[in-house]
Amino acid sequence: MNDGWIADRMRRIEASGIRKAFEMAKAMKDPINLSIGLPDFDVAEPVKDAACDAIRQGFNAYTLTQGMPELRSKLQTAVDAEYGHSDRQVVVTSGTSGGLLLALCSVVNPGDEVIIFDPYFVMYGNLVALAGGTQVLVDTYPDFRIDIDKVRAAITGRTKCILVNSPANPTGIVETAEEMQGLAKLCKERGILLISDEVYRSFCYDGPFASPASWNEDVLVVDGFSKAYGMTGWRLGFAHGPSRLMQEMAKLQQFSFVCAPSMVQKAGVAALDLDLSAQTDTYRRKRDKVVNALSGLFDLATPQGAFYAFPKAPWGTGTEFVAAGIAKNLMTIPGNVFSKQDTHFRISYAASDATLDRGLAVLREVAQAGPTA
Amino acid sequence: MNDGWIADRMRRIEASGIRKAFEMAKAMKDPINLSIGLPDFDVAEPVKDAACDAIRQGFNAYTLTQGMPELRSKLQTAVDAEYGHSDRQVVVTSGTSGGLLLALCSVVNPGDEVIIFDPYFVMYGNLVALAGGTQVLVDTYPDFRIDIDKVRAAITGRTKCILVNSPANPTGIVETAEEMQGLAKLCKERGILLISDEVYRSFCYDGPFASPASWNEDVLVVDGFSKAYGMTGWRLGFAHGPSRLMQEMAKLQQFSFVCAPSMVQKAGVAALDLDLSAQTDTYRRKRDKVVNALSGLFDLATPQGAFYAFPKAPWGTGTEFVAAGIAKNLMTIPGNVFSKQDTHFRISYAASDATLDRGLAVLREVAQAGPTA
Repeated sequence: MNDGWIADRMRRIEASGIRKAFEMAKAMKDPINLSIGLPDFDVAEPVKDAACDAIRQGFNAYTLTQGMPELRSKLQTAVDAEYGHSDRQVVVTSGTSGGLLLALCSVVNPGDEVIIFDPYFVMYGNLVALAGGTQVLVDTYPDFRIDIDKVRAAITGRTKCILVNSPANPTGIVETAEEMQGLAKLCKERGILLISDEVYRSFCYDGPFASPASWNEDVLVVDGFSKAYGMTGWRLGFAHGPSRLMQEMAKLQQFSFVCAPSMVQKAGVAALDLDLSAQTDTYRRKRDKVVNALSGLFDLATPQGAFYAFPKAPWGTGTEFVAAGIAKNLMTIPGNVFSKQDTHFRISYAASDATLDRGLAVLREVAQAGPTA
Repeated sequence: MNDGWIADRMRRIEASGIRKAFEMAKAMKDPINLSIGLPDFDVAEPVKDAACDAIRQGFNAYTLTQGMPELRSKLQTAVDAEYGHSDRQVVVTSGTSGGLLLALCSVVNPGDEVIIFDPYFVMYGNLVALAGGTQVLVDTYPDFRIDIDKVRAAITGRTKCILVNSPANPTGIVETAEEMQGLAKLCKERGILLISDEVYRSFCYDGPFASPASWNEDVLVVDGFSKAYGMTGWRLGFAHGPSRLMQEMAKLQQFSFVCAPSMVQKAGVAALDLDLSAQTDTYRRKRDKVVNALSGLFDLATPQGAFYAFPKAPWGTGTEFVAAGIAKNLMTIPGNVFSKQDTHFRISYAASDATLDRGLAVLREVAQAGPTA
C-alpha cells in the first residue's frame, strides 16, 4: 500500500503507553501486576442476569441511538434529582471514551485549544488531535490539585474547552468542592465549555464527590458503567449536558457507534440499583494499605479516589524505577505515559490483597536498594 | 449554553433521514412497515448461548483492542483462505459503521475527496465530513451499476479513496465480477484506496459475491455480523486490509471504541459456524415476491442482494409517492434520503410475508390511483 494514504492526524496520535507496558508484562512470567486500570471484581449476578435475559428475550436489534427509553429515563431521573437543571439531557453512550469522542468531535474545530491537566489520562490528547484541536497542558505537580491562577493564565482566545477528571487517573486525587466551584465559575465567566470526566465518581474515600455541574449548568459530564460495575468490556457509558449539545452528540453517534450494545443497556438498568458501598470500602482499605506501605520511602500525594496512586520515584526517572521493579517481576506504569515529565509512576491497587502486598514489598525493596541495585 | 461551542463540522453532518421516517412511522397506528433496514429474524440459539456463557464465565473485561485472539484468528483464517494476500490483516471492530469511521479517519485529510456512488448509504457522507473530507458523488441511475468511465472522470488530484457497497443499500444491486475487477484495477492504477463495504455479502441471490479485494491486495474491506446474524444491536464487525492501515485503525480504536463488546466477540466465534443458506433462501423468495408484485407498474432495477428494492415512483417525487403510501398506512423511505435526487423510494423486504403482501398491495393501489388519489 501507499504510506501516503495515512491521514496526517495519525502522526499526532500515539499508541497508548499502557499498551506498551502490557506488552512488556506479557514477556514476564506470572508478574505481580499493579498496572491494570480495571476493577478486580466481576459483574454482579443481577446485572449478568439482566444481560442474559435481554439476549434470551430477543432484545438484540438496534436501540434508539440516544439510548433505550428505560435506561435513559432512569439516568435522567437521577441527573435531574442531583442538579435540577431545566435543560440538562442524558444520552447513553458506548463507554465513557465513546462519550468523550462524541463530545470533543461535536465542539472542537481545527485550531481550537483544549486545556488538559498534566498528569492526564492517555486518551485525552489523542481525542483532541482526532478532532483537529491542540492540547494546552496545565501542570499540577506536585500535589496534582487545580491551581485556578494557572488555568486562568493558560486561557487564550482559542480556548474552546477544559477537560477535568476527578477522581483522577493516574493520581487518584479528588478535587474539593471549592476547587471544582472555582473551575466551574471560571469557565462560566469566560464562556468556555467545561467537560467533566466522572467515570471514577463512585470511588471517593474521604468525602463526597463534587461535580462542577453543581455550579455551572453548561458543564458537559461524561460518565460510565465500566469502572463502577466491573463491566469494562461491555462498553456502556452516558453523558449529560445542555440539550443542544447532547443532540449534536446523538447525531454523531447515529453514524459512528450507532447505539450502545442492546443487552448491555438492559443490564445497565439493573446495575443502577446496586449498592456499591462494599466495593468502595474494599478499595478504601487497599488505598490505606498502599499509603501506609509507601510512607517514609516515597513522596506520595495521598490518593482519595479511583484505584490509583502516583508516587514520585525515589531515585532515577519514573521509567528507570519501573524498570527496576520489572527486574523483580513487578509491573507498574512509568509516569511519562501520563505526563510530559518522567518523575513518577502509577500503581493500580485494583488487585487482590496478596498481589498488592507482594507488590508493595518489592516497591519498598527497590526504593531502599537505590539505583545501584 | 453558547451555540458557538458547536464545531463547524456538525453543520456539514445531517441527522439521518431514516430517523425522520421512523418518527413519522411512530405517529402511525400499527403501520405496514417496510422501512426498517434490519433482519426480521432473531439471533440464533447457539450464538445467544455463547454470549450468555461468556457473561456467566466472567469474560466481561476489556479485550485486546484489535479483537480477542480466538475471534480474530478465525476471521484471519477465513480471509487468508479467500484472498491469500501476504499482508492482509484482520481487526475486530464495533460494527461495520465502527470500521468505516476508523477507516475514513485513518486516511482522509481535510480537503481530500472521497468518491461515493449515488444512491448511497446515508452514513457515508457524514463520516467523510467527520474526517474533514469532501464527498464527490458519481451518479448510477437508472440501473445503479458502476460506470467505470464516470468514475475515471470523477478522479482528481485530491481523490483519496472510493467507497463501494455491494450488495448495496438502498438498491439491492450486486456488482458483477467484471465491474468489481474494473473498479479494483482502476484504483490500483491510480494509487487510490478502495474501501469496500461488504456488510450484505451473505445475501446474494443470483450468483456469487465478488469482492474487489480479489483483484487488488490494497483494498480495505469493512464487514460485520449485524445483518447476517440478526445482531444489529450487538455492535460487532471486522475490517481487513494492508497491515499498516489496520495498525492505524487499531490505534484509533484504542481510544474511541476501545474494543468490541467482550461477550459479543465470543458470540461471534459461534456465529461463524452457522449455515446461512435457509435465511438466504427466504430472502430470495421475498425478493421474487417484490419483483413480481411491482412488475408492470413500477420501473425497478432488479435487486440481487441485501433486502432492499429501490423502485422509481410511478408518479410524483419519491417523497410524494411515499406520502401517499403513508396515507394508506404503509411506511417506506423516500429516495432523497439516499440520494441527491428524489425520484425513487426504498422498500425493505426484511418483513413477514403477511406484512410484505399487505405492503405490496398498497403500493400497487397507490401506483394505479395516481396523484389525484
